[in-house]
Amino acid sequence: MRSINKTAVLGGGAWGTALALTAARAGRQVTLWARDPNVVSEIRSRQHNPRYLPGITFDEKIEATSDLRDVGSADALLLVTPAQTTRETLRALAEIGSFAVPIVLCAKGIEQSSGKLLSQVLSEELPDAIPAVLSGPSFADDVAKGLPTAVTVACENSDAAEMLAIAMAAPSFRPYASTDVTGAQIGGALKNVLAIACGAVVGRKLGASAQAALTARGFAELTRLGSALGAQNETLTGLSGLGDLVLTCSSTQSRNFRFGIELGEGRKAADLIAEGGKLAEGAHTAKVAVELGRRHDVELPICEVVAAIISGSLSIDKALTTLMSRPLKHEAESGRN
Amino acid sequence: MRSINKTAVLGGGAWGTALALTAARAGRQVTLWARDPNVVSEIRSRQHNPRYLPGITFDEKIEATSDLRDVGSADALLLVTPAQTTRETLRALAEIGSFAVPIVLCAKGIEQSSGKLLSQVLSEELPDAIPAVLSGPSFADDVAKGLPTAVTVACENSDAAEMLAIAMAAPSFRPYASTDVTGAQIGGALKNVLAIACGAVVGRKLGASAQAALTARGFAELTRLGSALGAQNETLTGLSGLGDLVLTCSSTQSRNFRFGIELGEGRKAADLIAEGGKLAEGAHTAKVAVELGRRHDVELPICEVVAAIISGSLSIDKALTTLMSRPLKHEAESGRN
Repeated sequence: MRSINKTAVLGGGAWGTALALTAARAGRQVTLWARDPNVVSEIRSRQHNPRYLPGITFDEKIEATSDLRDVGSADALLLVTPAQTTRETLRALAEIGSFAVPIVLCAKGIEQSSGKLLSQVLSEELPDAIPAVLSGPSFADDVAKGLPTAVTVACENSDAAEMLAIAMAAPSFRPYASTDVTGAQIGGALKNVLAIACGAVVGRKLGASAQAALTARGFAELTRLGSALGAQNETLTGLSGLGDLVLTCSSTQSRNFRFGIELGEGRKAADLIAEGGKLAEGAHTAKVAVELGRRHDVELPICEVVAAIISGSLSIDKALTTLMSRPLKHEAESGRN
Repeated sequence: MRSINKTAVLGGGAWGTALALTAARAGRQVTLWARDPNVVSEIRSRQHNPRYLPGITFDEKIEATSDLRDVGSADALLLVTPAQTTRETLRALAEIGSFAVPIVLCAKGIEQSSGKLLSQVLSEELPDAIPAVLSGPSFADDVAKGLPTAVTVACENSDAAEMLAIAMAAPSFRPYASTDVTGAQIGGALKNVLAIACGAVVGRKLGASAQAALTARGFAELTRLGSALGAQNETLTGLSGLGDLVLTCSSTQSRNFRFGIELGEGRKAADLIAEGGKLAEGAHTAKVAVELGRRHDVELPICEVVAAIISGSLSIDKALTTLMSRPLKHEAESGRN
């Protein structure tokens, strides 16, 4: 594998821009590809992205482009387009070349149409690429501002994982290398769904104790699915698993948590979805997460409740009663009920 | 074991009073023993405890006493006096009888003078008692107000654990039975220390991402110590472990978290301690937790940093740098550094 200097970031939203900034701070030569020409021109002319990272001026140089061919020579690519457009972006890349370089999946979620993890989508669309995953508790704003953040960078090839971690490392941004590509995606796949449930508990003012209990049970759910898919336990308890879950289930900076709060306050899921705008990813993922669980014979009761709220088949009152009053059982068994 | 109706709660603070209320709501006949005669007279005369649970009137009958002999005939005792006075309370009980009934340890912490878990202290002082533990994410205020709360009730005897869980169960208070008495104490033993570290990160305004990363690493620390002591994994990831850790490391309702915030804001540990008042238990526990770890060959880097802040041997700036910038390593190894 060649050493990583030229780094391309695909996706000009808040997270893509924050990761581009981080790579530049780490000393990499960075090209940011964005679909939106306004984002490209703002970065080119004034080194900022007022739409997605208002108030933050870039301290390091980032090249911006809306021409995908400009990323063709990169030593590594960070894919930060939304989870549900991953396949589309990869197909556009495949028209340019075979990309026998690390492609780091930075979006979180499961492909709705197929129920596949994004690393599977990547292997299908760009079989020569070296699949990698970057995930962990990290708000784009925190990262862009240089607040300390730690994430997992996973690649089956241990050397590649370490090279990627070193290529992205800056004093305030600590990537930890891992070889567990599947495990590093489980937290991201489920946490948005679980955050909606936690948000609903908070919106209904059921108290911090109930919120914490639900977070712990959500983690049990995440662990069961991860284990069934072959994830390593230390990945699930690490930054991309527990770390990201804790962040998403507790902070109003999370769109999914806020979506849950509105549900708990009595807003209808259908109305919130109809309002459009930036939708909470967990609202997309809930149903497909439940299906993924079924395929692997894993029950995901919290995800099921969230999916039922989103589909309109369960009222928020019944949902909260279901979440809060399971039968008394031994704790070791309780997750399976 | 006889069935549980007459329940005695020892300790008239917020948590003891909330648990007495819960037992009464569950239909038990409850005697609350409190050292403070004002607490006893307030409960007797007006069924409230304005000093510790202001604004909450009891919906069920609680008998209050300051005479320990009044608890002699209880079918089960809940011990809710502070962790560091557990041995003293048990010795006072031993003067009355042998108490061959379940004694449920509800305080959290490690005995400082001996480094022992409270269940060990109980076995030493009242060898005929059936040791049990109640622990989980539960603020006294939430419980007293009837907000939904779930906790672990552990007893080596599985039947006794279930009887205790049923005896305490009310619609808003869900105890889950477990046989893992050691595991149920690990979360309580470490979470207050870890919450001080998380609070310091928040007080220094390092962001929610850093707070979440530290919570995940704190959980890894808790898991390592728990495993070394023979705790079951499902207990550590359950309510008394992860659940309580998440609550304590994120809510300003926690005294330990607030203590950490003040440290992060630049206050000196020595000054905070000198001010007296209700001290954060984690400030007591940090040093003895580190010693417990050493005895079992487990490194607890976050606890070590907290112990060093408390003892004054490490400045808060150096402490935060240590916590936030460990060397880049594989994630699976990172906990040991």
